[in-house]
Amino acid sequence: MEGRTSLKSVFTFDLEKKEEEEIHVCGWIQTIRFAKKGKLAFISLNDGTSFKSLQVVASLSDLFEMIGFDDIKTLTTGCSIMVVGKIVKSPGGKQDIEMQSSKITLLGGIGDKSKYPLPSQKQSLETLRTMLHLRSRTQLMRAIMRVRNVLSMATHEFFQDQDCIWLHTPILTGADCEGAGEMFQVTTILGDNTSDTPQIPNSGFYSGPVDFERDFFKKKAYLTVSGQLDAESYACGMGNVYTFGPTFRAENSNTTRHLAEFWMIEPEMAFKDLKGIMDVAEDYIKFMISKALEKCKDELEFLEQRTPENKGLIKSLTTVCKEDFARITYTEAIEYLKIASDERKDGSVATHTLLSSGSIVPFATFEEKPVCGIDIGSEHERYLCEKLFKRPTIVTDYPKDIKSFYMRENEDMYERKLGEEGEKRKTVAAMDILVPGIGELVGGSQRDERYDVLIKRMEELGLSQDEYKEYLDLRKYGSVTHSGFGLGFERMVRFVCGLENIREAIPFPRWPGHL
Amino acid sequence: MEGRTSLKSVFTFDLEKKEEEEIHVCGWIQTIRFAKKGKLAFISLNDGTSFKSLQVVASLSDLFEMIGFDDIKTLTTGCSIMVVGKIVKSPGGKQDIEMQSSKITLLGGIGDKSKYPLPSQKQSLETLRTMLHLRSRTQLMRAIMRVRNVLSMATHEFFQDQDCIWLHTPILTGADCEGAGEMFQVTTILGDNTSDTPQIPNSGFYSGPVDFERDFFKKKAYLTVSGQLDAESYACGMGNVYTFGPTFRAENSNTTRHLAEFWMIEPEMAFKDLKGIMDVAEDYIKFMISKALEKCKDELEFLEQRTPENKGLIKSLTTVCKEDFARITYTEAIEYLKIASDERKDGSVATHTLLSSGSIVPFATFEEKPVCGIDIGSEHERYLCEKLFKRPTIVTDYPKDIKSFYMRENEDMYERKLGEEGEKRKTVAAMDILVPGIGELVGGSQRDERYDVLIKRMEELGLSQDEYKEYLDLRKYGSVTHSGFGLGFERMVRFVCGLENIREAIPFPRWPGHL
Repeated sequence: MEGRTSLKSVFTFDLEKKEEEEIHVCGWIQTIRFAKKGKLAFISLNDGTSFKSLQVVASLSDLFEMIGFDDIKTLTTGCSIMVVGKIVKSPGGKQDIEMQSSKITLLGGIGDKSKYPLPSQKQSLETLRTMLHLRSRTQLMRAIMRVRNVLSMATHEFFQDQDCIWLHTPILTGADCEGAGEMFQVTTILGDNTSDTPQIPNSGFYSGPVDFERDFFKKKAYLTVSGQLDAESYACGMGNVYTFGPTFRAENSNTTRHLAEFWMIEPEMAFKDLKGIMDVAEDYIKFMISKALEKCKDELEFLEQRTPENKGLIKSLTTVCKEDFARITYTEAIEYLKIASDERKDGSVATHTLLSSGSIVPFATFEEKPVCGIDIGSEHERYLCEKLFKRPTIVTDYPKDIKSFYMRENEDMYERKLGEEGEKRKTVAAMDILVPGIGELVGGSQRDERYDVLIKRMEELGLSQDEYKEYLDLRKYGSVTHSGFGLGFERMVRFVCGLENIREAIPFPRWPGHL
Repeated sequence: MEGRTSLKSVFTFDLEKKEEEEIHVCGWIQTIRFAKKGKLAFISLNDGTSFKSLQVVASLSDLFEMIGFDDIKTLTTGCSIMVVGKIVKSPGGKQDIEMQSSKITLLGGIGDKSKYPLPSQKQSLETLRTMLHLRSRTQLMRAIMRVRNVLSMATHEFFQDQDCIWLHTPILTGADCEGAGEMFQVTTILGDNTSDTPQIPNSGFYSGPVDFERDFFKKKAYLTVSGQLDAESYACGMGNVYTFGPTFRAENSNTTRHLAEFWMIEPEMAFKDLKGIMDVAEDYIKFMISKALEKCKDELEFLEQRTPENKGLIKSLTTVCKEDFARITYTEAIEYLKIASDERKDGSVATHTLLSSGSIVPFATFEEKPVCGIDIGSEHERYLCEKLFKRPTIVTDYPKDIKSFYMRENEDMYERKLGEEGEKRKTVAAMDILVPGIGELVGGSQRDERYDVLIKRMEELGLSQDEYKEYLDLRKYGSVTHSGFGLGFERMVRFVCGLENIREAIPFPRWPGHL
């Protein structure tokens, strides 16, 4: 394959200079059609270096020479070929350039065309999920994976520019990050890879407690649900860090929003408070989108045209980059949700104009009533960013009772009203970012850096100080204000690509019963 | 912390312009010393944005004002502070600039100095490993993690420039990648996170076979040992990809070279043969090193001065970038090893001049005799790159019998001599890259793209075609020449940083019994 020219570089050719030059390219046939009464073949060729395919024009006599008359029909979608030829201006209006081939060599055929799993007509996403190893050959997956790659690189570029270090936090963990989710257990005591008989070492019998002393790590081991605690320990020594790697949830969720294995980005920054980290998160999301718009024009146009729902995708992404995200406190959010769902007998639209812009609060019916002191539900999140603000929305200062122990306690209070009686309770410096079509994309907080406050909170919640000794050490020695967040990367990919299901946002999705 | 100036930007100040400007910086005290009969304090301050620390000069009267006379001794290594002051030219010769402070605020103390786990005197690496959450505060770990970060970014830069897409291959897998190593099993059937009693569902009793139908994925699940097979499936649809993520080995290895969890980079490139991928690997390693030399000057100088063994580190890294790697075939390597270890009664140095350069083959004693047809041992690898070639060495074309089934069969033969009788056997298009001080850093090959040859090989080895159905599909439909390799990232970090033990090359090392 030496001397091969990539299609990416073909598309940036200076035709004046290259007019007479013969090159060779390789790739897979996307489509092939015959024209001019069977005298010409038009091949759409792609080698993966560019989303766009190259049109190759071949005279049928060349093809005959190459593979013989009888075999012409074997040259079809999915075959890999090598083409020698010249790049010329395309007389057709569809593309700027095309290749006039002088020789085509078949590298790999597809055998019986009728048995090829990816015929040229469209297949359902469900069908494609049954052949994860082949779906990378579709336009759809190529577009998504190219966008995913650009979002990944934008992530690195953004955080490196903020003097953050990419920290590789471990997957294998002994701690459970304060119940962020159900965990997978990792073990070597269930027996070897081939036997179906468990070889669980214990006090002599198979039944009874498992002796984890004899497991690989001499204790229980899990797959991480978050790198936050480890990231905090590096932020408290090296300033700014971010993680970007896989995390796991062993939850039995069969939804369009959840995966058992997904990638997360978790920056953790010293000397930043909640306001500071919110600004970082907003800038980061906008930066990713602007990079996708800049580098994936062809891909996003393809994705936009794919479904009626995606119409306007590029325009709405452009708008997200330009406008400030809405920012409200949890208490305000509940207020809006209550007004929005106030029962009106005549079904009329509310005329409340609580928003600073003076616009009205649209009416909504919720399955669950919004209650101050209880977490905002998925339907409420969607209402806030899709109906009320119509743009990404940051909700801050949640009730401390529904958030993690490490979030920094605010001085301000909210009115908790679970029964008849109201009660003043504190809030914490937490924030969630909600985006239209997706819901929660980011969750973050300022971490409480005060040893005494943290100890008191842990006592209230019955958390073991011993188990969090290392975490407390960070507050014991040279403690600093610090904040961080987690962004679910597949949700971001889903948002930018306008995907119905998160299972298309990752090359090899994992969910219950599917491996 | 709003308005804080990072130390990184302080070090790039244009002093002419900033002379009169008062700024504030934050950070941790690295060291503090008192001079001029107790009238001045010199604080070395670091905030993580730069490896270099800033010298802060404070008059003691300011400090007294701030924290009171009695507390002056609490201001010590490990404390976090905020300093307001001006950046000026340093009168001392040790640094270009320093900060003259007008106000210092203690953010977080360290309590009783005698109980601080990281006193200023050096601690052993073993001791530091007992407090992974704090060792990020040492110069050593900060240097290594900054180099690691630069090598990571160099990886992305290099492969993106080669039109490769960063592919996030899954950690959770049902396949075992052709026995690349012992695997961890992942499960949810060992009971909940808190109970010590196993709740293994089976045919009614605890004993007997485990019913994996009731596990999370309804079958056995493992942690991946390599993303190669998944990367191949994307390379055969999207051209060029690379993975960069964690991989796992459940091997009971307590060495300076092995980790249970480590990061690997695995490029997989379509239309590349063995020669092509070797060139990529050599360029990639050189690119990483050149980036470290360019961006981590201070860090590498620190690492070089750390131990006597590291003397000359920067020079030898520079040489690696400049010289071609040595390239020999396995058969040649065995030949050299045999010559080197030929018994000589007088212990004299061999005078064989087989090397193209005309240099001699130095004598060696090996624990294991080099035998053609058996894998090259660790001592042999070290000999080749450290004694014979004195530079990174690529060994190619290994016997097919000691390599994986998917490696492309060559036409050339080698003489296998296990017993008395010799036998002609085929080689495969495999390559390993050996580097001084480390041994094997890279392993790769051209993958066999020929369906029939692969089927034949699998039959010879008794591998199930059913289990590798998806892998075989890649050869069935539009098959192309493709090649790839895996680079152990912690070994690379160890090489560049001159580390004795791989456990310092990763933030949170995992090995048997240590989690």
